[in-house]
This record gives sequence, structure tokens and C-alpha cells, in this order.
Amino acid sequence: MINIDENLTVTSPVGFKASGIHCGLKKSLLKKDLALIYSDVVATSCGVYTKNKVKGAPLTITKQHLVNKKAQAIIVNSGNANTCNGDDGLAKAKKMATLCAKELSIKNDDVLVASTGVIGVPLNIDAIKDGIPQLVGSLSSNIESAKNASMAIMTTDTIEKQAGVEIELNGKKVTIAAMAKGSGMIHPNMATMLSFITTDLSISPSLLKEALKQSVNVSYNRISVDGDSSTNDMVLIMANGLAHNETITEKNDDYNLFLEALTALNIYISKKIAKDGEGATKLIECTVKNALSIEDAETLSKSVVTSSLVKAAMFGSDANWGRILCALGYSNIDFDPEKVDVSFASETGTILVCKAGSPVSFDEKKAKEILLQNEVKILVNMNLGSSEVTTWGCDLTYDYVKINGDYRS
Amino acid sequence: MINIDENLTVTSPVGFKASGIHCGLKKSLLKKDLALIYSDVVATSCGVYTKNKVKGAPLTITKQHLVNKKAQAIIVNSGNANTCNGDDGLAKAKKMATLCAKELSIKNDDVLVASTGVIGVPLNIDAIKDGIPQLVGSLSSNIESAKNASMAIMTTDTIEKQAGVEIELNGKKVTIAAMAKGSGMIHPNMATMLSFITTDLSISPSLLKEALKQSVNVSYNRISVDGDSSTNDMVLIMANGLAHNETITEKNDDYNLFLEALTALNIYISKKIAKDGEGATKLIECTVKNALSIEDAETLSKSVVTSSLVKAAMFGSDANWGRILCALGYSNIDFDPEKVDVSFASETGTILVCKAGSPVSFDEKKAKEILLQNEVKILVNMNLGSSEVTTWGCDLTYDYVKINGDYRS
Repeated sequence: MINIDENLTVTSPVGFKASGIHCGLKKSLLKKDLALIYSDVVATSCGVYTKNKVKGAPLTITKQHLVNKKAQAIIVNSGNANTCNGDDGLAKAKKMATLCAKELSIKNDDVLVASTGVIGVPLNIDAIKDGIPQLVGSLSSNIESAKNASMAIMTTDTIEKQAGVEIELNGKKVTIAAMAKGSGMIHPNMATMLSFITTDLSISPSLLKEALKQSVNVSYNRISVDGDSSTNDMVLIMANGLAHNETITEKNDDYNLFLEALTALNIYISKKIAKDGEGATKLIECTVKNALSIEDAETLSKSVVTSSLVKAAMFGSDANWGRILCALGYSNIDFDPEKVDVSFASETGTILVCKAGSPVSFDEKKAKEILLQNEVKILVNMNLGSSEVTTWGCDLTYDYVKINGDYRS
Repeated sequence: MINIDENLTVTSPVGFKASGIHCGLKKSLLKKDLALIYSDVVATSCGVYTKNKVKGAPLTITKQHLVNKKAQAIIVNSGNANTCNGDDGLAKAKKMATLCAKELSIKNDDVLVASTGVIGVPLNIDAIKDGIPQLVGSLSSNIESAKNASMAIMTTDTIEKQAGVEIELNGKKVTIAAMAKGSGMIHPNMATMLSFITTDLSISPSLLKEALKQSVNVSYNRISVDGDSSTNDMVLIMANGLAHNETITEKNDDYNLFLEALTALNIYISKKIAKDGEGATKLIECTVKNALSIEDAETLSKSVVTSSLVKAAMFGSDANWGRILCALGYSNIDFDPEKVDVSFASETGTILVCKAGSPVSFDEKKAKEILLQNEVKILVNMNLGSSEVTTWGCDLTYDYVKINGDYRS
């Protein structure tokens, strides 16, 4: 049994420090905008990146720096995505790493870079340059510092997203922790979503990469806030080996337990991100079961959580299941509408609203009560095969429109 | 030169009558909910339908009745989509046609059926049955009756959508007119969108079908309100031949002129639908030019007009061109981000905001003025090939959420 612990932070694994400061990229002096995660020793590291054709400059630099599968620090700014800035953007992303490496007295390519914020506005690299001494100077392994780092990567996020998990591998305690940001533009295949994972596990680079990819596919890649996929998303992991477990080099029990824990952590963080969708008032979880294949189940489920009409109905706590059928119908997946069952569920109960593609009479009051909760499940049974997938999203609200109507000012 | 005339209605072509009444499907007695279009003689007819896997019962019946490529009447109700109602829905859609045919003393399969409204609620066929005598009794070719029909198919529409065009074929005047509804759930490939076209043209069934398909592809299939595709959409056309033109049986000049006029009319109506998107305050027109192919240009353009973030930025009149690059980027089309130019335009002028994928300094005040207009153009130059496509959509507003938060009640 994997227990996620909200009190664990990216500095909980042995040998990690963090810091977060205000350097001037955000207008308000109260808002932190520059974060650093640092490992006392060079760590095995890898990343997963957005599939958007337009990619932020930091992704290019981070990929270059990860060619050797090693890293010791991650520097992240919010307030500016440093994307669509041409050569100037690349030069500045590189400079951000170089300045940080110099202050830390480590190699340039052991520093990874990430940015989030507005696209197409030149990055104020001077503010970052001036902030780096303070950023490095305030590195610490205490909770305070981890929280500062976590807050410094937030944009329209309303809550911090961080948590951790402890597992035991042959008597050695191994800790995995993550901090993330993401609110608008969260979509299957990683949209303005950043997640940084630290662990003191000892593992081979290839298995770390495989575990990361596999866990991301069923977590960050199964959430959607508004259907838009971003330019800057990435999930990075650093494994520094300081737990001194027997190094994982094959898919043994240790590997499986690590994968299970990492996946549980990433799903936990993903749900936090979905629930904190811009303006969202509730988390929507859609489980499609008995589909013909995992791919079908995933496409069908995502079509439901991405539908503006379904999302608006959930905001209004309206049991308008016809929109769910409709969203399944335009997903381009082949199925028999006359076999589909739909139920709604939350902590107050479960209610069947559509059986074999047709209405069933149900208690509207009970349905309303279920839908008024802040975590609502949509359960779809395709009655065709045996594959099941769950994806997460949020409702569409007035505030989403407000937040995105004039983001730049 | 094709001139669209807003004063022409579906009863303008020779030999067409229409009517619209309140029969009781909508709660308010003031709201019409049942419409009829009738041709004095049996007309050549065909349709184009939604690609949604879940299809409304009326579509099934209409397709059956069009096997012989002939029709004399179209009966349409609003307030209930008669979809996801199983065998009961099919029986009622059929009964709607039969009752109407009996009252008109015409053949059952010469009556086409369409429905729009909520999904998964049994259709009140008794109200329709009781209304049909009045519906048929009030058939007339005057403008009033055409407007009544046009109003009776509206759901969340705020404006009527009808217009017509006259062309001359070898000295004979031919009139084409259309009435349509559509507001939410309008998406490329026909979503809760109904359009009924009448013409007194004489044309072979196969060429009528080809012209309809071709014109729909560049009009109704290039608009998007919220990305959701509906279950009930269709475009139907009746050509009764009473203009007594030489019957079009090949792709001659007459055919080409007809196709041009039909396409212009359908684009005109499509823009009306996009502009009347639920809660919309402005029409967004996105032209992608110099793409590698028409398919690429269409996918790229639709990705922009469908993006929630672009739509919200347009609502806020915010020149946030980064979101346009981002939407192009996640469309899965291959292109070079560093070749893309983006401009905004409206009747107050044009402004370049992004050149070769990078920002250009521009007058924010002028940009705001351009974006504050109620028809805004997004111009994207891919600088790769020579293909160009325009699609239409609308902004995303508080009212969209309000309208869709509790549609059923």
C-alpha cells in the first residue's frame, strides 16, 4: 500500500536543498518568481517534454544538458515562458544555466532550466542574474525552503502542489517527492505544466527514464483543464542515490515498488493540478470501462473531460448525461451507442442516469446532491471489451474566462 | 458577383411555403417550437449529416426518406433533440413524419424530419400531433410565415439566421434561400446545427448532392463555437425545379454559377452562426495562408479558432499572439515555428504582432482598438507553401458558461 504524504517536500529525500525568491519577473514584490532545486551530489536525471511543435527555449537547453543523463540543479522561473523569442530566448535560457552553475560552482550542463508564464515577451535575464546569489545563498533542506521553491513556480495556480512518498527497499528507506505547477492549458500530453521530482533512490539511467515515462503516461498525460497543450511543459526527475539502496539495474521487485510509488505520487499531483484548473470549482474524474482497448478507453475518457459542454454542465451540477454521450460520439472511436451506461458518483453516492444509451428515470434531487460535491466521478461503461482508463479534468466556470480574458496585463 | 440578400427567405423561391407555431415543447407560450417547409411539387432533395457516432433518431428517418432523392416537406421541432431515446425515439420520429404527411395529403417518405434541443428526454409526440393541423393550416409563402418557421427552430440562438440569393441562368431567375439554427456545439463537421435550403432550380439529384457537399465543406464545416460536435446536425436542400431553367445535368457554366451562389450563401449563414455562438460578443475569422496543403491549413486554422485560451484572449481584446502560436503547435501539423507571421485585423486596420515566430514591437493601443471590434481577423502566414483556408469561430465569454451551466432547466 502506497501512502502519499503531503508533508513531504522535494527536500525530504536525502541530499536535496531548495530555495525560492522574488527576483523581479512578477510585478508584485510579494510573489516569488525564481526557484532552485539542488542535489549535494550529481544525480541521475531525465525528463519528459511537451509534444507541442512550438517549444520553449528552456526545453532545448535542458535536453542538451541531459544528454549525459546527469544533473545537479534545476533553476525555474515563473512570469515569463521564454518561448517564441528566437535566438535571444535560447541565449538567455543558456545564460540562466551558466549563471546558476557558476554561483553553485558546478558544471554548466549539470543545471537544468525551466520557465513558465507569458509567451513572446523577452526574458528579463538581468533580474534573474541579480537574483541568483540570493537564490543560491538561501538553499536549504528545511520545509520552508521547499515551500518557497514550490511557490516560486506558480502562475495562476491557487494552491501549492507538492507531496512525497516513502518506500522501503531491502531495509533502506527511499523517499520520492514532487513539486508541480499547472493550472490553465493543462491537457493530455503535458501542457503548461511543470513537475520536478527528487528522490534519493539509486537506479540506472535507462530504468529511471522508463519508470518516469510510464508513470507520466497514466498521470500528467491524463489530465485536461482546457484542451490547450502548452509549449513549455516538462517533468524532470533527479535520483541522487543517497538512500544507498542496492542500485536498481533490472525490473525486479525493487523496480516495481518504485514504479508503483512514483505512479501513485504523479497521479496524486496530477489530480491536484486538474482540480486547480483555472477558475475550477471541482475535480471531474471520468472512468471509461469495458472499452475495446486502452487506447479507445483513453480517447473516449479524454473526450468527455475535455468537452466544454460537459464541463459547463458539471459547473452547474446538471446531470445532463446527453452531453457525455455526445462527447463519446465525436471522439472518432468506434462503439455501439446503444450499449453505453452512464452513472455519476461522489462521496454522497452513485446514480445511474443512462442505461443502454437510453434514459432511465432517476432521482434528480439525489443527482444534484452528488454533482454538488467538489469531486465528481463520471462512470461510463461501454459494455464492449475489458479495458479501463481514468482521466481527470475540471469544470468550466466564469472565472476561467475572467482569468484568461486578459492574462498579459 | 454574388449578392446575398437578407430579405429573401425560404419561401422566396417559386412554389415554397412555410409556417412556424408553438405546440408545447418549449415551456414559454411565446416561443415557437415547430416548423414546416413545404414545396408545392415534389422536389429533388438530399442532405449532409453529423459525423457523431451518436445520432439523433430524426437523422435515421430522414436518411430513409431520402433514399429516393425526393422530398416535399421538412418538419422540424426545437426543445427536444429526440436523441438517445432508443426505439421510442425512432418510432416518434417516424410518427412525426407520418402525421405531417397525412395532414398534407402527401407520401410519408416525402416528409423529412429534424429535431434540436436536449438529449435523452422522451419527445412529447402528443404536443406535436396536436400542433400539426395548425402548422399545416398556416402554411403560406409570405415573409411572415418564413420568419415564423425560422424562429421555431431556434434554441439558444439570439438572432434569426436566414438569407437568400438570386442568380440568372439563361434568362431564368433562380432563387436559393436558407434558414438555419445553431449556437452552442457548433464545430467543424456539423454540430447542433440545422440548415434548410430551398431553391426553385432544376438540377439532377447527383449534381445537387455534389454541390451541397462541396459547399458545406467550406462553410458549415469550417465553423466552431465550442469544439463539441453534435448528434443531430444536418443540412437539407430541396430543389423543386419551378424556376424552369434548363435542368442542370453536367458541370457546365450554370452548375458553376449555382455552386458559387450556394457556397456564398452557406458561408454567409455559417458566419452568422459562428457570430451567434453561445454568449459570444464577436466573430473570429482565422485565415491560415501559405501552408503546405489545404488539409494542413484547415487543421491549423481550426486549432486556432477552437482554442479556449485564444477565444478567451479575444473576449478580452488581448493581443496575446503566443496563444495562437501555441494552438498551431499542438495541431499535430508539421511546420517551422520560426517562419510563422501573425497579424490581427478588423475594420480599423491591420497590425503585425509576430514575425518569423518572434515578437515585433507593436502599438498596443492600436492592437486593442482592432481587437475591440465585433469582427476580428487572425491572419497567420506559415511561409511554407501556397494553401489557404479560412475558418470562423467566436470568443469565449462568461455568458457561454452561464448558458451551458444549467441548460436543461
